[in-house]
Amino acid sequence: MSNIPSSGLQLRSTITSGGELQLALVDTPVTAPSGDEILVKVEASPLNPSDLGLLLGAADLSTLQAVNGGVTAKVPAPAMRAMAGRLDQAMPVGNEGAGTVIAAGPGEKAQALVGKRVAMLGGAMYAQYRTVNAGDALALPADASAADGASCFVNPLTALGMVETMKMEGHTALVHTAAASNLGQMLQKICLKDGVDLVNIVRSAEQAKILKDIGAKYVLDSTSPTFVEELVAALKETDATIGFDAIGGGKLASQILSAMEQAQASKGGAYSRYGSTRHKQLYIYGGLSLEPTELVRSYGMFWGLGGWLLTGFMIKIGPEAGQKLRQRVIDELKTTFASHYTAQISLEEALKPEVIAAYNRKTTGEKYLIVPSKGH
Amino acid sequence: MSNIPSSGLQLRSTITSGGELQLALVDTPVTAPSGDEILVKVEASPLNPSDLGLLLGAADLSTLQAVNGGVTAKVPAPAMRAMAGRLDQAMPVGNEGAGTVIAAGPGEKAQALVGKRVAMLGGAMYAQYRTVNAGDALALPADASAADGASCFVNPLTALGMVETMKMEGHTALVHTAAASNLGQMLQKICLKDGVDLVNIVRSAEQAKILKDIGAKYVLDSTSPTFVEELVAALKETDATIGFDAIGGGKLASQILSAMEQAQASKGGAYSRYGSTRHKQLYIYGGLSLEPTELVRSYGMFWGLGGWLLTGFMIKIGPEAGQKLRQRVIDELKTTFASHYTAQISLEEALKPEVIAAYNRKTTGEKYLIVPSKGH
Repeated sequence: MSNIPSSGLQLRSTITSGGELQLALVDTPVTAPSGDEILVKVEASPLNPSDLGLLLGAADLSTLQAVNGGVTAKVPAPAMRAMAGRLDQAMPVGNEGAGTVIAAGPGEKAQALVGKRVAMLGGAMYAQYRTVNAGDALALPADASAADGASCFVNPLTALGMVETMKMEGHTALVHTAAASNLGQMLQKICLKDGVDLVNIVRSAEQAKILKDIGAKYVLDSTSPTFVEELVAALKETDATIGFDAIGGGKLASQILSAMEQAQASKGGAYSRYGSTRHKQLYIYGGLSLEPTELVRSYGMFWGLGGWLLTGFMIKIGPEAGQKLRQRVIDELKTTFASHYTAQISLEEALKPEVIAAYNRKTTGEKYLIVPSKGH
Repeated sequence: MSNIPSSGLQLRSTITSGGELQLALVDTPVTAPSGDEILVKVEASPLNPSDLGLLLGAADLSTLQAVNGGVTAKVPAPAMRAMAGRLDQAMPVGNEGAGTVIAAGPGEKAQALVGKRVAMLGGAMYAQYRTVNAGDALALPADASAADGASCFVNPLTALGMVETMKMEGHTALVHTAAASNLGQMLQKICLKDGVDLVNIVRSAEQAKILKDIGAKYVLDSTSPTFVEELVAALKETDATIGFDAIGGGKLASQILSAMEQAQASKGGAYSRYGSTRHKQLYIYGGLSLEPTELVRSYGMFWGLGGWLLTGFMIKIGPEAGQKLRQRVIDELKTTFASHYTAQISLEEALKPEVIAAYNRKTTGEKYLIVPSKGH
């Protein structure tokens, strides 16, 4: 087929056993899609917090240096142990993206997508071309741009996954931390639409305003001197007994469990030194703080804490339920799940030290989009 | 019925809002059993670690004082908050016990137990008489003494519950801490009998010897300088991905999860910064250390930590599965589930300051038994 390019640029991240991070654009052969595969010209791919971990690893970004079309940085020795599994591998990066299908294998599903704009999940999206299975792509509505569709998996499915997990595990309201993020705003919009009570925890008045502006009822600032009392009151009112925490380190996870227990205990019932029998659950799904998590176990015996990851959740609910969630994202792409980008950058710009410093700041509400066609 | 006494002594524990623990023997009316109730003359009831929490609360035992047939102690002010749910209530104590059925309601199940020696679960066992539902009692074999049957619920069902939880949650081997306890020895005996690999963690060579003497294969001393390496090696060999921790506070829980992850990661597979996809679970079922639990989250995203409590487990598996476990305890009462007691004490002795100090020491392998008939 004449429309298949022979090769395309792909961003690769390597951490060497010598302790150096190397980012480079590698010209990679493109092969003709077979079976149910589609070949997509990537038009947009976001830099999510979950991408930055793989992209930059444990590198010390104050040591970033432009080198021969790429960039390098030093990885501090104590952090190298956590990098052991990826040493000296040139890893492709980019969990999700959108683009146009320029070729397809003979499979029916694949052929049906030729010429269409699709959203994709599956890694290696920071590239000019990406071959994926048709089942890992979703056709976008005709009026959706690549930017509209580029972020339609990770944040939307994570936010929907939290609400589904809440229901599956028998809870009726939930708590969310670092709640003014792009993801947090989506979660609040879902909860407003679905009539689910959400207790948002943020760390500044500016962040609180972002959520109040979209209609949030419960927004608590953890830096307030009356935070704990306000949290207990909100948990009494909402009866929330599950929470999702993006921070991970420090005392907040334990404070939430403790406030849940106080709210449940206030309902009365016979004394038990094992606490209230309602199960209180907190999931850590991010690591904004890499400090240790400190648990002051003042919440009886009916509690749980654990990791939560979108891919694990999707496997648990199975393909049919997963497809329903994906369809909802497409249906509400320009409302509930609309993403806003701070800047659109090229693959080459994604390797510039000053641009890396900017997209790695993780400022609340800021988000960068890689547009591989830019400059080409 | 002439064999029903009008009253009997019952041990009561009160924490006053003024900050005082009061233990006393209270003469309590005995009423005729109705329906499926049985009236049991209590012959033996153990002082389990789980009883001591309710019995002594947060009292400072250096302030114990014999007072008017009872005993008092001061509760430090900072600990009073955790006591809020039980203030000024004279609470009966004693989770389990054994005795002889001296009267029964007209129900068939109750009548079938008249004259028999039974084991009971249900609280308020530190008493001369106890009325329970026939369903909460189990007839003991003819050759079982009250001492044999007194501890046949809490420790045996907890140990069996750990192995059942392991199976229910898809694991094939397990880890146990403070493993040389009465409970830990039972767990090792069950695992040897059922062919389940158990990694025991203890804190001294003496404790290790207790377990090795009953045939334990994996016994690690957490005070050893090579503990972490030994733990990872044992977890590789056994593939244990679930653990039960009696300690709670400190770093051990996190160390175990981390070692599980290292053992799983060593099996190879593609690199993921979310760690191995095998779920790693640790349950805290005791609180030998009341320090905060410190989690250094170096085990990816597929992990969980939580409280584990026998009563919650029994509700989860339902009455039929529960009955099977109970029957196994009775069947192996003098082998797998044999208990040994350091001393047998009367109700009156249980209130003496020097005796309280002795049974509260929680020395590994020591256990006291209350015998209400002693001295009467």
